[in-house]
Amino acid sequence: MSKKPLIIDVHGHYTTAPAALGAWRDLQIAALKDPSQQPDPKSLKISDDELRESIETNQLKLMKERGSDLTVFSPRASFMAHHIGDFETSSTWAAICNELCYRVSELFPDNFIGAAMLPQSPGVDPKSCIAELERCVKDYGFVGLNLNPDPSGGHWTSPPLTDRHWYPIYEKMVEYDLPAMIHVSTSCNSCFHTTGAHYLNADTTAFMQCLQGDLFKDFPTLKFLIPHGGGAVPYHWGRFRGLAQEMKKPLLQDHLLNNIFFDTCVYHQPGIDLLTKVIPVDNILFASEMIGAVRGIDPETGHYYDDTKRYVAATPNLSEEQRYKVFEGNARRVFPRMDAALKQKGL
Amino acid sequence: MSKKPLIIDVHGHYTTAPAALGAWRDLQIAALKDPSQQPDPKSLKISDDELRESIETNQLKLMKERGSDLTVFSPRASFMAHHIGDFETSSTWAAICNELCYRVSELFPDNFIGAAMLPQSPGVDPKSCIAELERCVKDYGFVGLNLNPDPSGGHWTSPPLTDRHWYPIYEKMVEYDLPAMIHVSTSCNSCFHTTGAHYLNADTTAFMQCLQGDLFKDFPTLKFLIPHGGGAVPYHWGRFRGLAQEMKKPLLQDHLLNNIFFDTCVYHQPGIDLLTKVIPVDNILFASEMIGAVRGIDPETGHYYDDTKRYVAATPNLSEEQRYKVFEGNARRVFPRMDAALKQKGL
Repeated sequence: MSKKPLIIDVHGHYTTAPAALGAWRDLQIAALKDPSQQPDPKSLKISDDELRESIETNQLKLMKERGSDLTVFSPRASFMAHHIGDFETSSTWAAICNELCYRVSELFPDNFIGAAMLPQSPGVDPKSCIAELERCVKDYGFVGLNLNPDPSGGHWTSPPLTDRHWYPIYEKMVEYDLPAMIHVSTSCNSCFHTTGAHYLNADTTAFMQCLQGDLFKDFPTLKFLIPHGGGAVPYHWGRFRGLAQEMKKPLLQDHLLNNIFFDTCVYHQPGIDLLTKVIPVDNILFASEMIGAVRGIDPETGHYYDDTKRYVAATPNLSEEQRYKVFEGNARRVFPRMDAALKQKGL
Repeated sequence: MSKKPLIIDVHGHYTTAPAALGAWRDLQIAALKDPSQQPDPKSLKISDDELRESIETNQLKLMKERGSDLTVFSPRASFMAHHIGDFETSSTWAAICNELCYRVSELFPDNFIGAAMLPQSPGVDPKSCIAELERCVKDYGFVGLNLNPDPSGGHWTSPPLTDRHWYPIYEKMVEYDLPAMIHVSTSCNSCFHTTGAHYLNADTTAFMQCLQGDLFKDFPTLKFLIPHGGGAVPYHWGRFRGLAQEMKKPLLQDHLLNNIFFDTCVYHQPGIDLLTKVIPVDNILFASEMIGAVRGIDPETGHYYDDTKRYVAATPNLSEEQRYKVFEGNARRVFPRMDAALKQKGL
């Protein structure tokens, strides 16, 4: 590759939104007990300057320092908290959070492009999420979405992702050519720490649900991105190959890897080395989830744990051409609407 | 090392018990709806010859082929199914299953040594398990136990392992110097495939619960063995180091690694390479869980997926002295009663 690749981070959340956002959410939650106190969404005022500052001093600063160009940006995952309230609660909250990400993408069009949070609610038909998703695509130019396989927050009361329950979302994804990151939110089950157990468990669970089923026969162009390096999956790739074999499924390459992709949110070099050794390079997309679960500096390296670009750059398992795929090429393929937006800018 | 190490497999289940065992369990389950049909445990007749055959044609055959010497042998994990029935159900069932493992250990004393299944039941005080555990240690010479952190079978209704709820078991473990393998059973939650999601999720969850808490301050000599290579933990070791740092916990080495150990049930070479690179060698114990979750032959290697001895032997990350620790030395240290039993035999 003679051209320097565009560095696209496909997993960013707005974890640094101004405090007014959390304060409004607190009022909304308090009002669940006293509906007369329900706050008006219009009462939430966040100026462009506040948005700018929250980004320039955080994500954008780190992107410049680390050398990434564009982040697929969605509302803070742990704040989705779909288990709180009912559909109306989630609907109002998702609309607010998505709009903020849209405004960020308008303020920094070269650096951020949106992905939608859905107004999911436990026990509610996923069809109810379509209107918000359409709005995010049509009005906001969003290029992906986050799908929570467990809106109950750690009780896992929804059917598996292969169930027809979820098909209305998949139909819309296929229609708009949108990939979904399969991403849970806060755990309200005290057994599961949110970012240390629930997130990783959900990644493994989602992959295994797809392995057991035949979802991609019904939706051959559907695309799932499994975050956090695929949970436990690449480390146990032999186990999953063996389980597929026992279930008389095709090889994973054929059964799942036309539709399932993994990000690089694995916070140490040996993990990225394993990921890039085991998973075909066409299925790996660069991501950091920066200013997320793990914000500190690794005393063993002197660098941020979540500075995953360093690990991808340093791994001996990738040629330059393969590194281009991980940093840019695969993201363009998995997010066709982002690719189109980039091309429109001559990129 | 001049002496060839004893190869000790610390994770074996009696997955090949004669069919009469499953038939008896079916009657027991059917009787939950019609207590008058409750089968008598004495009605289950399995001869020594049947036991011998079930072992000689399966585990022992593979142990000889692969070159392992001694297996820590416990009842089939997926058959524990603690979510079925009540304490009485589990109590009768555990007694039967433990006795069979004891009989195997008596028939093949050089090759098998027992570990106990507990008669856990959702919502029942773990104290109720002590009598069976004592019997297994005193009458059967068992050297370890399997502790199910989720007797509900995928609904996670028990408190975390750091909760005082579990302390009666820990007190007995410390008294007898027994390690516990943290091992769930069948998932009855359709979201979680038993061996492809629930097992691995439980491993990750258990580790994170310990990371969040300070259990080992209360029980400095307590030992937990996390099976299946620690679930997602070694692959995400940087994440866990970073989370501990954010929670102001000591380094994982000091916070957890005097008490937590990982087995080698990871079914491909890159996984074992990562495990042995990331986790200190003193915390890794050889195991295969043979004839378990993944029974096939890997077409990429021509060998059984679960022939983990090959991966441990082949990894470039271990010196001969370190390999001795993984195959024998660490197991003797973590299972002091097994070490004593071996020494009594002059081994």
